[in-house]
Amino acid sequence: LKDFIQSLRALIDARLRRYLDAKAIETCELAPSALELTEVVDSLTSRGGKRLRPVLLAAAYRAVQPGGDVERTLEAGAAVELLQSFLLIHDDFMDRDEERRGGPTAHVVLQRAHGGDAHRGASLAVLAGDLASTYAWELLLEAPFAARRDEALQCFIRAQKEVYLGQHLDVVGDPDTQRMQQLKTGSYTVRLPLELGALLGDASPAQLGALRSFGEPLGEAFQLRDDLLGTFGDPAVTGKPRGNDLRAGKRTALIAEAEELLSHDDRAVLDRAHGNSKATDEAIDDASRLLVARGVRNRIERRAERLVAAALDALDGAELGGEGRQLLKELAALLTARVA
Amino acid sequence: LKDFIQSLRALIDARLRRYLDAKAIETCELAPSALELTEVVDSLTSRGGKRLRPVLLAAAYRAVQPGGDVERTLEAGAAVELLQSFLLIHDDFMDRDEERRGGPTAHVVLQRAHGGDAHRGASLAVLAGDLASTYAWELLLEAPFAARRDEALQCFIRAQKEVYLGQHLDVVGDPDTQRMQQLKTGSYTVRLPLELGALLGDASPAQLGALRSFGEPLGEAFQLRDDLLGTFGDPAVTGKPRGNDLRAGKRTALIAEAEELLSHDDRAVLDRAHGNSKATDEAIDDASRLLVARGVRNRIERRAERLVAAALDALDGAELGGEGRQLLKELAALLTARVA
Repeated sequence: LKDFIQSLRALIDARLRRYLDAKAIETCELAPSALELTEVVDSLTSRGGKRLRPVLLAAAYRAVQPGGDVERTLEAGAAVELLQSFLLIHDDFMDRDEERRGGPTAHVVLQRAHGGDAHRGASLAVLAGDLASTYAWELLLEAPFAARRDEALQCFIRAQKEVYLGQHLDVVGDPDTQRMQQLKTGSYTVRLPLELGALLGDASPAQLGALRSFGEPLGEAFQLRDDLLGTFGDPAVTGKPRGNDLRAGKRTALIAEAEELLSHDDRAVLDRAHGNSKATDEAIDDASRLLVARGVRNRIERRAERLVAAALDALDGAELGGEGRQLLKELAALLTARVA
Repeated sequence: LKDFIQSLRALIDARLRRYLDAKAIETCELAPSALELTEVVDSLTSRGGKRLRPVLLAAAYRAVQPGGDVERTLEAGAAVELLQSFLLIHDDFMDRDEERRGGPTAHVVLQRAHGGDAHRGASLAVLAGDLASTYAWELLLEAPFAARRDEALQCFIRAQKEVYLGQHLDVVGDPDTQRMQQLKTGSYTVRLPLELGALLGDASPAQLGALRSFGEPLGEAFQLRDDLLGTFGDPAVTGKPRGNDLRAGKRTALIAEAEELLSHDDRAVLDRAHGNSKATDEAIDDASRLLVARGVRNRIERRAERLVAAALDALDGAELGGEGRQLLKELAALLTARVA
């Protein structure tokens, strides 16, 4: 698996580099002074080193086409990375996040480049996100889907719509965090790459069905891990400040669970940190320790484990190639590895 | 022409109605509480009554396929209307415009719906624009381009990129207003509909070339008229407050011309209105009258007339059907009619 991931990462990075260099030239030909938009997309995309989505996409392709050439998956993989850049740029503006992937977010970069004007920074970040979205489409349309192209485009469209609706639930603080996370993250992080990889391999309906049954619980487990990382994760790993989700007041699965589990007094400790952008590191630590001591963290970890087990079950008995199936299983473990 | 426009408008309105009703159901199935996003897209799209872009698209189709059934153009026409909705929603947030098409802009609607929270209104408007963009893609992919589909998708992608770069120049106040307007407006208002209509009719390279040569000066003339409307237009016609472009400090063609033409004292009169969001109606009237008295308005009107003449010249001698050519000529006149 490590070899597979490393070689695919290098291929995707090279494909993205070639594409983004061409876009910089294109922008310079049309409007040189707008190059900062392409640059901000490039910078965010280039520093996203894990490439989990293209790896998942290539593994699904290999599960359907044993021994197939993963070069065929690079345009679709690069498209999913640019879709991710687009979504992150817009989300970071909405969430007022200032750090992403170990660097400043797009609206912060653009605000600084324009004399600290926050509205201008936000406006240009919205444009940069729009541009990244169009780049994603352009790359996807270059992918060799052959007769399955229309299906692939429909998957791409559905994933986008689900993300927007999920993000709406997130922005307004909808209490149904599970649905919010399925729509917002599961759709394009796990299901979409699996679908695109399967369609590139001309999957049968049974194969596509098995991969979706694998993807749904896996996507949910991945999101739970993301919640655990956002609260307990090491900033060196997450690229975001410590306790970021707590300070930002995100309604993560942890918070939903805490609301059911905590006593009134415990809630007061949590509330000193949650949704308080000025919470001290001590208040963040107190809240984190409480979530551990009261078993909230443990419950979410157990739930994630059950979901991963369900995902792995869906692969067994499916008509998928042995090597690809093994890759998918190992990726499932990697995607949902325990937060240290 | 009137009959053609009226019947096409009715067909497009019906197609949009059917599509948007289906989207409301789709959103309710996925996340009922996010319905306000689909509703804000619906509301803005439904009240855009002129449908000039779909009409232009259908006329280009008829110029290439005399007597062809305009029903073939409805998906592409509806897609261009939703592209327009998407761009307006994001632009209105960037420009801080509060009125559009005689009603409140998306971020204002959504801010009011969420207790006056401006950031939440802006966030949800960005999402509503993203959703409208995906709707536009979905409709475009339903259009019967047959063997010309890839070309059509490339035109759609290029127009989007040009709009974003043009909008960037607008947001940062780039002095090259002509390039800004070509990119920001001409690309998707005139050239894109002409291209899509021509491709639906399976146009020859010569026909496509003639329509582009027609579209380029026409797009520029249309934008000059838009500038004239934004400064001198009747609010009942424009759907925006009087003197909107002046108060907003837009660098229109009028302002670029005024900078070359006006004396120091005259500039002071203009500057009391231009870029002053609190300018009184008297200050706006003084500035408007000055632009007329010093010949600025007249110069822009003459420039628009020359551009329209160049556009019409490009149609003569082109291998286009007589009825379609006549439609395009009359539409050119309509699109650039003198501002009363």
